Amino acid sequence: MEVRTSTGPAFVVGDGRPPFCGLRFADKAAEWELIRDPEMGLGELYADGRFELILGDLYNLLALGARNIVAPGGPGLLTALRTLQSLWQRLGPGVAPGRARANASHHYDLDAGFYRLFLDDDLQYSCAYFETPSASLEAAQLAKKRHIAAKLALSPGQKVLDIGCGWGGLALYLAQNCGAEVLGVTLAREQLQLARQRAQSAGLADTVHFALKDYREVGGSFDRVVSIGMFEHVGPKNYDAFFARVAELLAEDGVALVHTIGHLGAPAPTSSWLRKYIFPDGYIPSLMEIAPSLARAGLAVADLEVLREHYALTLEHWRARFKANRDAAREIFGERFCRIWEFYLAASECAFRYEGCVVLQFQLVRKFEALPITRDYLFRREAELRAVEERLRSGAKS
Amino acid sequence: MEVRTSTGPAFVVGDGRPPFCGLRFADKAAEWELIRDPEMGLGELYADGRFELILGDLYNLLALGARNIVAPGGPGLLTALRTLQSLWQRLGPGVAPGRARANASHHYDLDAGFYRLFLDDDLQYSCAYFETPSASLEAAQLAKKRHIAAKLALSPGQKVLDIGCGWGGLALYLAQNCGAEVLGVTLAREQLQLARQRAQSAGLADTVHFALKDYREVGGSFDRVVSIGMFEHVGPKNYDAFFARVAELLAEDGVALVHTIGHLGAPAPTSSWLRKYIFPDGYIPSLMEIAPSLARAGLAVADLEVLREHYALTLEHWRARFKANRDAAREIFGERFCRIWEFYLAASECAFRYEGCVVLQFQLVRKFEALPITRDYLFRREAELRAVEERLRSGAKS
Repeated sequence: MEVRTSTGPAFVVGDGRPPFCGLRFADKAAEWELIRDPEMGLGELYADGRFELILGDLYNLLALGARNIVAPGGPGLLTALRTLQSLWQRLGPGVAPGRARANASHHYDLDAGFYRLFLDDDLQYSCAYFETPSASLEAAQLAKKRHIAAKLALSPGQKVLDIGCGWGGLALYLAQNCGAEVLGVTLAREQLQLARQRAQSAGLADTVHFALKDYREVGGSFDRVVSIGMFEHVGPKNYDAFFARVAELLAEDGVALVHTIGHLGAPAPTSSWLRKYIFPDGYIPSLMEIAPSLARAGLAVADLEVLREHYALTLEHWRARFKANRDAAREIFGERFCRIWEFYLAASECAFRYEGCVVLQFQLVRKFEALPITRDYLFRREAELRAVEERLRSGAKS
Repeated sequence: MEVRTSTGPAFVVGDGRPPFCGLRFADKAAEWELIRDPEMGLGELYADGRFELILGDLYNLLALGARNIVAPGGPGLLTALRTLQSLWQRLGPGVAPGRARANASHHYDLDAGFYRLFLDDDLQYSCAYFETPSASLEAAQLAKKRHIAAKLALSPGQKVLDIGCGWGGLALYLAQNCGAEVLGVTLAREQLQLARQRAQSAGLADTVHFALKDYREVGGSFDRVVSIGMFEHVGPKNYDAFFARVAELLAEDGVALVHTIGHLGAPAPTSSWLRKYIFPDGYIPSLMEIAPSLARAGLAVADLEVLREHYALTLEHWRARFKANRDAAREIFGERFCRIWEFYLAASECAFRYEGCVVLQFQLVRKFEALPITRDYLFRREAELRAVEERLRSGAKS
């Protein structure tokens, strides 16, 4: 990154390619804080308004950093510190149920009204599936539910467990479009309440149930287990426990689908800023960390799809919507909160675009006989589901 | 396994479910050899005709064993020995180019006439792709080439490297159906010669070239790199070198497809009998062993398809064809050779049906931008290729 001092205490930074960014620090100490711990410092300084962007925007600035300061390689103090940080995240205290509840509450018990400011109308708070890059967020989130439903290869009447059900959108989709009986579990009371209301209003209160439960507290047997965007909260100490529980809850000829942010490199620490301000104990797993736990749980990977661009696009939509509704968010939560969320959304988008973050979508079985021998059913099912959605839509209209 | 002594020196073995198998040992020492080292002993005794099957056939006997003596778990002498064996296979001498040549020659320099006795008419010596379980072997091998071609997402004129090209069937398919320019490399002179003849007769000598080369000796840059059923010979010491070479040979926006027998568990030793009699230095990798090498090479997994039933079906076809042509094989190579091959085919089928063996089909990229953002193209491409095949077939007839 080429740094050029401009007039006064401002900088223009760039790597020779547009966009360039201009920064003005509010105080001298801010510069030092940034140098001392860039990962934590940048987010904190931004939240506190201790630097001002006089050229470009936050996303440009973060993208510039991400493009130029990629994961450190080779020996050195930074690598050693990163390794220690990584070991601490992996070997430090695991996320026990009580702590999991507090963590979930920290983020997901914000009023749904806030999430409505940037999510799609179904409140899907995970990577969408863009059939084309120009699809709307609403269309892409619907396509995500369809894509996952196809991979679950559901038959009507089958029992599904949704671990980390959010505000219930996927559970309702699986009941409405596939005739499944769904139990969705969450640790956030706000999510539970809205999910239950939605099941009620959709007339699905008999087939879709929601509960405030940790994955370790669920019992019974399910034909399908699905978990979208929850694994990031499990923590590496509990990967074995998580997959063992999935295997236990899954019928012998069952199918599980686990969709998580991850990466394909060696285990690496998750941003300390993210863990402090957004997701307490959040940890982004490597494929290498997941594979051994799957093997020990007796779950076989039938299919692994790796999505990257999809989350970058999703985050771009969220960021734009958040920006458009910033005043409303500011009114409820204040300026600092908004800045923290802006930073989180922009930094996450950069992580997918430049820093090796991907979504790992695992289709898991206890026995390969649980699924057809080729993937052709996926495409047939997606087409069938599209037709069902169409029928339901025109039924709802008429 | 319930063992019941029958009259005289014969046994009937079974686990309470049919089929049962009856064995008669030729001599007392044979029984001891089997007990001392079952993995090596059973194959060697069968090859030497030192036991006779008086009930059931070899496949039934092996399946019975595989169903009942699964991978040892927990501590104990057997586990310790297996761990040592596994370490030796992983940490012992790597497969240097000269040794790789000798290994390839041992198996693949057998006359193609022999392979014609049990392979399909295109001499595809790897897992076929059964669109339905009842498809013919010829149809399934054609579907395999189509499936792989679709995953390669080829454009006409693109350069493809096929590492371990066998008798050239895939290379010819990619040239003929996708308009690719292909370089196929093998270490077996017999394969090279026939592959070249086939390119010549197909009028493709200008676009398809074959060479006697180790993957470490290939230079240049390719839009696509494909390697089907060769990785099993690379050896764990060279996984890093193999993938680093693939990454080096691959254009920045290239796509690689590596298709290998593997498993999803912890690294485990490969049958010592198989390594002694069939594939010198052969080693069946775990997903966990491959993932770190891919990461170090900078190759990202875009898609991982796991096939199991397909290889069991393929081997069932090969075994049936081998049986039907046993007399011809015996005439050239003798009884002992035939028994070794029978054992190899039957044991391999059991490995896929009962022992966790799968085919790992990795689609790899240096940048995710190399591929469309959804997998929908796979299905469109397969349909397009089917139409091209049809056109070529009717053109060839007219």
